[in-house]
Amino acid sequence: MLKTGSEHLEQLRDGRVVYIGSERIDDVTTHPAFRNGARSMAAIYDMKRADPQYSYEENGERFSNYFLRARTKDDLVRRLNLHRAIADMSYGLLGRSPDHVSSFVTGMAMNPSVFGKFEKNLMKYYEHMRRDDVYGVYAVIPPQAARNPEFYVKQNIPVPTLRVVREDDDGVVISGMKMLATGAVFANEIWIGNLIPLAPNQLPESITCAIPVNAKGVTLWSRKAFERHASSEFESPLTWRFDETDSMVMCEEAKVPWERVFVHMDAILAREIYIKTPGHCYGNHQSNVRFHAKMQLIVGLASKIAQASGANEVPAVREVLGRFSALEAALGGMIAGQIQDAEDWPEGWKTFNRRYMYAALNWCTESHSAIIDSLRELCGGGIFQMPADVTVMHDPKLKAMFETYWQTPQLPALERMKLYKLAWDLIGSEFAGRHLQYEKFYAGASFIVRNHNWREAPWAHYHKVVDDLMASYDIPDK
Amino acid sequence: MLKTGSEHLEQLRDGRVVYIGSERIDDVTTHPAFRNGARSMAAIYDMKRADPQYSYEENGERFSNYFLRARTKDDLVRRLNLHRAIADMSYGLLGRSPDHVSSFVTGMAMNPSVFGKFEKNLMKYYEHMRRDDVYGVYAVIPPQAARNPEFYVKQNIPVPTLRVVREDDDGVVISGMKMLATGAVFANEIWIGNLIPLAPNQLPESITCAIPVNAKGVTLWSRKAFERHASSEFESPLTWRFDETDSMVMCEEAKVPWERVFVHMDAILAREIYIKTPGHCYGNHQSNVRFHAKMQLIVGLASKIAQASGANEVPAVREVLGRFSALEAALGGMIAGQIQDAEDWPEGWKTFNRRYMYAALNWCTESHSAIIDSLRELCGGGIFQMPADVTVMHDPKLKAMFETYWQTPQLPALERMKLYKLAWDLIGSEFAGRHLQYEKFYAGASFIVRNHNWREAPWAHYHKVVDDLMASYDIPDK
Amino acid sequence: MLKTGSEHLEQLRDGRVVYIGSERIDDVTTHPAFRNGARSMAAIYDMKRADPQYSYEENGERFSNYFLRARTKDDLVRRLNLHRAIADMSYGLLGRSPDHVSSFVTGMAMNPSVFGKFEKNLMKYYEHMRRDDVYGVYAVIPPQAARNPEFYVKQNIPVPTLRVVREDDDGVVISGMKMLATGAVFANEIWIGNLIPLAPNQLPESITCAIPVNAKGVTLWSRKAFERHASSEFESPLTWRFDETDSMVMCEEAKVPWERVFVHMDAILAREIYIKTPGHCYGNHQSNVRFHAKMQLIVGLASKIAQASGANEVPAVREVLGRFSALEAALGGMIAGQIQDAEDWPEGWKTFNRRYMYAALNWCTESHSAIIDSLRELCGGGIFQMPADVTVMHDPKLKAMFETYWQTPQLPALERMKLYKLAWDLIGSEFAGRHLQYEKFYAGASFIVRNHNWREAPWAHYHKVVDDLMASYDIPDK
Amino acid sequence: MLKTGSEHLEQLRDGRVVYIGSERIDDVTTHPAFRNGARSMAAIYDMKRADPQYSYEENGERFSNYFLRARTKDDLVRRLNLHRAIADMSYGLLGRSPDHVSSFVTGMAMNPSVFGKFEKNLMKYYEHMRRDDVYGVYAVIPPQAARNPEFYVKQNIPVPTLRVVREDDDGVVISGMKMLATGAVFANEIWIGNLIPLAPNQLPESITCAIPVNAKGVTLWSRKAFERHASSEFESPLTWRFDETDSMVMCEEAKVPWERVFVHMDAILAREIYIKTPGHCYGNHQSNVRFHAKMQLIVGLASKIAQASGANEVPAVREVLGRFSALEAALGGMIAGQIQDAEDWPEGWKTFNRRYMYAALNWCTESHSAIIDSLRELCGGGIFQMPADVTVMHDPKLKAMFETYWQTPQLPALERMKLYKLAWDLIGSEFAGRHLQYEKFYAGASFIVRNHNWREAPWAHYHKVVDDLMASYDIPDK
Repeated sequence: MLKTGSEHLEQLRDGRVVYIGSERIDDVTTHPAFRNGARSMAAIYDMKRADPQYSYEENGERFSNYFLRARTKDDLVRRLNLHRAIADMSYGLLGRSPDHVSSFVTGMAMNPSVFGKFEKNLMKYYEHMRRDDVYGVYAVIPPQAARNPEFYVKQNIPVPTLRVVREDDDGVVISGMKMLATGAVFANEIWIGNLIPLAPNQLPESITCAIPVNAKGVTLWSRKAFERHASSEFESPLTWRFDETDSMVMCEEAKVPWERVFVHMDAILAREIYIKTPGHCYGNHQSNVRFHAKMQLIVGLASKIAQASGANEVPAVREVLGRFSALEAALGGMIAGQIQDAEDWPEGWKTFNRRYMYAALNWCTESHSAIIDSLRELCGGGIFQMPADVTVMHDPKLKAMFETYWQTPQLPALERMKLYKLAWDLIGSEFAGRHLQYEKFYAGASFIVRNHNWREAPWAHYHKVVDDLMASYDIPDK
Repeated sequence: MLKTGSEHLEQLRDGRVVYIGSERIDDVTTHPAFRNGARSMAAIYDMKRADPQYSYEENGERFSNYFLRARTKDDLVRRLNLHRAIADMSYGLLGRSPDHVSSFVTGMAMNPSVFGKFEKNLMKYYEHMRRDDVYGVYAVIPPQAARNPEFYVKQNIPVPTLRVVREDDDGVVISGMKMLATGAVFANEIWIGNLIPLAPNQLPESITCAIPVNAKGVTLWSRKAFERHASSEFESPLTWRFDETDSMVMCEEAKVPWERVFVHMDAILAREIYIKTPGHCYGNHQSNVRFHAKMQLIVGLASKIAQASGANEVPAVREVLGRFSALEAALGGMIAGQIQDAEDWPEGWKTFNRRYMYAALNWCTESHSAIIDSLRELCGGGIFQMPADVTVMHDPKLKAMFETYWQTPQLPALERMKLYKLAWDLIGSEFAGRHLQYEKFYAGASFIVRNHNWREAPWAHYHKVVDDLMASYDIPDK
Repeated sequence: MLKTGSEHLEQLRDGRVVYIGSERIDDVTTHPAFRNGARSMAAIYDMKRADPQYSYEENGERFSNYFLRARTKDDLVRRLNLHRAIADMSYGLLGRSPDHVSSFVTGMAMNPSVFGKFEKNLMKYYEHMRRDDVYGVYAVIPPQAARNPEFYVKQNIPVPTLRVVREDDDGVVISGMKMLATGAVFANEIWIGNLIPLAPNQLPESITCAIPVNAKGVTLWSRKAFERHASSEFESPLTWRFDETDSMVMCEEAKVPWERVFVHMDAILAREIYIKTPGHCYGNHQSNVRFHAKMQLIVGLASKIAQASGANEVPAVREVLGRFSALEAALGGMIAGQIQDAEDWPEGWKTFNRRYMYAALNWCTESHSAIIDSLRELCGGGIFQMPADVTVMHDPKLKAMFETYWQTPQLPALERMKLYKLAWDLIGSEFAGRHLQYEKFYAGASFIVRNHNWREAPWAHYHKVVDDLMASYDIPDK
Repeated sequence: MLKTGSEHLEQLRDGRVVYIGSERIDDVTTHPAFRNGARSMAAIYDMKRADPQYSYEENGERFSNYFLRARTKDDLVRRLNLHRAIADMSYGLLGRSPDHVSSFVTGMAMNPSVFGKFEKNLMKYYEHMRRDDVYGVYAVIPPQAARNPEFYVKQNIPVPTLRVVREDDDGVVISGMKMLATGAVFANEIWIGNLIPLAPNQLPESITCAIPVNAKGVTLWSRKAFERHASSEFESPLTWRFDETDSMVMCEEAKVPWERVFVHMDAILAREIYIKTPGHCYGNHQSNVRFHAKMQLIVGLASKIAQASGANEVPAVREVLGRFSALEAALGGMIAGQIQDAEDWPEGWKTFNRRYMYAALNWCTESHSAIIDSLRELCGGGIFQMPADVTVMHDPKLKAMFETYWQTPQLPALERMKLYKLAWDLIGSEFAGRHLQYEKFYAGASFIVRNHNWREAPWAHYHKVVDDLMASYDIPDK
């Protein structure tokens, strides 16, 4: 099934419990903190439904391409194309769009035997997701300080991490907190799990399951909602539309039926399901593509900002622009390479080249701040010369002054203001600040990303290069 | 005279014309966009008045130390101490506090003959400033795109830069725009001038003068005022107090009496007054000290954030903290060195070592983004796990959950939230975004800062090092 | 024809004039400054001859794959595979191996009409190269200071750049200097040309032609030959084998027959032949692949060095190793992507994706120093604890001490020394120093590389991204 | 006593056992691997003897200023001036000149009670050093892999680190290896100790003592001696003079008389003597000053290299030069600041500000590679266009060609070659490679340097800054 955007919005009016501070949000589709974000998500459904290239048929049903388990490189290309179409809609600013977690689950469904006795649950969930066009997000990290639970125990304060507190005939009961359910406010369901390795004895915490956002006992605690503070689309065009939201997930005695349990009482497996299946790779390939869309906005803005002051004629600025385009293409190459050197893994399936995917992930994580900083330099101090807001256009006298004094040979005053306001929303607004923080951590801290790279690296091959070289000569005779 | 904070606030109710967008602000001392910023500035006056070490006596009058023309290293230390005391009050977040432009003028008053026929005007202005404890700011940069006026002329659109449009018996009449009058909303007077070299034929633009903020024909166009959008001091403690504001200065036929004219019809001199006197050096020494105060807040926050999650025990994190403290001390050393190696310049006076001052300025300009980025890394993804706002404490049920689940062995929940909200205001809020932009450009683009360093460098000495070395050997005999 | 290594060595004994300082080298295949380098080059011929996958058949003849004009992606893969096999033989340390310039010429032969009246010459040269398995190098840069010839003219000193000094019936006569003919000592022929744009009036300098290394009037002025100073293969295993040499090419009235002239009296075309054909792209794709081979040696060494002291168990070191492998894979991805997104250009042919190729080139240029620096950090101060040379093994008493005291739980003493000597040859020897310089400039200064990226960037697309976004909203109503 | 250079050279002919590989060096003052280095060290003695400002009088004797225990800031300035004069002689390329370890011992002699029962030994040693103008070096680091001795024990192989193997009535007997006695070949005595913390049970390894270089049982194992491989001063002017050498120190049953023992059987104290006295600070202040001298050579070279090709006229190059001078001044400021904010510690004495000293040490450690890399960029590819060696000037035909073709409007050919050869010896030669490695580790790995900064940082003050800020506001009322 390919649902419409309206249908998706309708689904969000389901009694879910969302807090902004102490304010309980009744309807996320109309509340000024969320309505435009909700629409941006809904628009994705309309877009992919409208173009048959973005879905595939199986047994007479049509499913979004991000549910496609690839058998060929062409299948991988079809996945890529849909990721790209989705990412382009938000200029890469929606990190956890509906194709992210769906790709995790799809990857898992290519090697479900890893799940052992819960294999069927996983496959059923996969079928459910694609059939009902489910927007799933995840909460797979314990609260920050809770990674050393022994400290809590020592001080006799409750460990906050979500865990199974009871098993019943019809399922498990979970309580506690997980972070950081980006997009949850706009999603149908939340995948609960553990991306970071657990200690072997963290058995109740190993629960991996899926719950509807409106499940009894589930509350979402949103961070500050930036959309609400955008005074107009003109002032804050990105904040206005693309605040995907981040929430803590609180569960108080939430019941999860057995058929939605995927891992239970197995601390090792809880982590391995992501990396012993293409789950993590399919999911983070989307992250690469999403960042690439953002790069295109950044490069475009860099160039237009340079043009706005005529700086694009300066050789040193041209070099900076050339470098920007080189960075955009570098990531483009890393993404395309994932298909060229796709892996035949698991047997019978195709997976994006994992090493290139992790390399790109590392590149994004470690490059984003400096890229934005370089854009800041192009913007210069002039970003503060714009009036506080566009209401100057509503006052005839001010409008006249503004149009006279703020125009440049390159651009009319209003165009300049519009351009700078847009740039500011990418480099300086609170929305921008959240992205600067988020890009650094959305795939985990840099050491986590590098450890993924370490894990998948062909160390035996690297060592052989050195060993063979060293074996080819010996100490010289006396 | 050492005025009180209340007196300063009273002076700001003078009919000045300030716009936020199209909103005309009546009283900046009470308006929600400015009132706390105004108080932060006023508090500086009370602080320096309360402690006699921060003023000096001359001819029976007491003046703030930042008006002290130094004869000895001790005098320089007295200046430094007041800059530091002022900077500490805002944790280095007020860049254009009252001691900045005052220091420029004081430095100029140490070599006023540079001003030629306007020498007496300059000295009179200096006397006026210190006697009336004037808070002066400056607007010394043309609008961004206007640095190539020929483009405007070619397209037959008016060059927006401020210039003299008429000379009268009693003064000059100026019209046009200057950027970026940081702090002007809270100041008494604006110094108009040119820090960036003019083309030799830009004679009417060379005007350098001082005008009261409430002068007829003067309007301030403020950028977005962040203070107004801070929902509480708890959520945004820095935004709440320390938004120093930036404004474009528009003059429409504003009259400047001759006695407030310092340069006129001299494009070269317009720039040289800053660097042929200690003006630029005295003023930017304050910038160094101000940044140093910020570094202390940053290092303190880095350490407390690490403690909040127990990460301070991790060797790699400890190394990061060690590096933070090394950076703080590096700048501290560069500042202290300016006194140790103070210059006897101009004759009879003492000036901070200019090369060390510019070196520190360059260091601040090129280091700030990476320092904040490093703080971001210490904060981690956990910064988003805090509730949207502190109102959760006002709802008993939410409060109980919050206190139970958000506490850690290191900190109670509320303390954590308070700490993370503070950190966010330094790394992620729009206020933080403005600082990231501002630190890069407040002394001009990096090439300008480096050109100051280039100008003051002892090239003959450097070359001699190489020349002497090369002269000490020759080509070997055959 | 696929010549043997011995045949190639034989060809080098052709009377060529090579100077090291004032020493005239008679036979580069036996001289201690060049013999191992010569053998390393010769070995490439044997390697590619031995394995049929590295050549293709056309009209009954077999040619090396680097002469293959690609019609399909598979053809591109065949090219890539041979580049990789060649690069692996030298661990990426031979930058101008026989496949570099051959690839330029092959790319040109895919769009020869660009050459106008010299089209046939180019095609004949291409046929000659592949038929005779010619090792061509190039000299395509004017001497460093000569890029502003007007300075020379002003001072009345001769412009040193190579140029046509006379036209005869049977060809042109050239005199002057070109840099930097890397590998020329080991090559058959030199391509003379201009990779950097000429001024429009530099007509005689626009000559683009090919000459045998032993042509009358041609002399090679080698930089210091490092191989000669390697005391043994054990001490300097890389210097020993892989000093590819760099030479200035001096021509004194050298005659070039018309059929070897490709551009003449056309300053614009002299540059465009590289970028209006796949020449520059085919040639620099090899550069990418070559650097990738080096990355594998670097990553292997990094890991083994860490193991040698047990540091590989330290989490922070493991993170560094993970990052190293991420960098290796990033470049791998950028290379693979060039095939996945290959261009149908010129019509009927396939070319590696140019943007990804230039992006990789930029990445290599700007990353190499920091990568080596990171390897330095892994090596630590311990690199100096090794004895001066391996002769300690020849003295029984010293040998016993060495084996006792220098062994570690991880490695015997001799193995440690061997490993550290190898590492030093990549990070600290003069050979290493040359690579640090060379990687920064072998594709031109960084601004040149970035300008290539700028030139090929889809600016209209980038701008459209921004324009469409900005077109989708307008100023709000009052 | 202030000895002459000749006297110092004479002292080096004392039967010391030095190996280069298996070659036993008889006389380091005449051997081609060491003679110029020896002379460079000897010249320091003549220089400081010739100028009375570099020595002070006490009880009728004159001592070098680096033995001066400072009572005033002026005393610190006198120390600084001598360090600077010494460093200038080698352009900062001799890291362990005679003033380095002397300063450690002098600092210790300001708080000798730390040494407990060995206090008198320390003071006697200090008196001996200054009276006899002793050149002391040190070996204070265990062999690289030996920092985890338990690995050795587990595998039943001997731990190589130097330790006491026996106590006799007249002293202790030591055996084993220490690194890295830079300069030992040219020194009189070696200080043996432990700069890196020992495990509490490493008691025999805690020995801290002084032994003459020619003591029975002591052998020096030199790393490769670069001076020997310099073909002439013209080709390698820095290698020729300033290879200070690095050696492993091997002791086989070497006897140390009790009066030269400073720490014994005390693993904690072995480290603390450096940091509980001004020893580490006095010694590393010299490191700062030494690096500063190098910076001046670097900046001078950068400027002259830019002039040699006319690049100094390019704005972007001028900005680079401005930045170079800013870096030089930044370090200059950090050094001067150490005197301005000198510490009254220990009671009655003056010590350079430790925090600024460590900050400068960290700055040098983390900045050197990038500074050299920036110089590489200024040199460009043109560095390889120079002939292999200066013998081209000995052949009339080659000389004529060289002078014609290699000259530029800026410089004659020979001057260019001389300049580029000099630059290469700082950025590319093996000597340069050793400096690139050495600057990273001469004060220990970066984490060690940062831990020094961490240790000395005023954490309570930093925390108070944050605590006071946070205490000044509370959660808002409902």
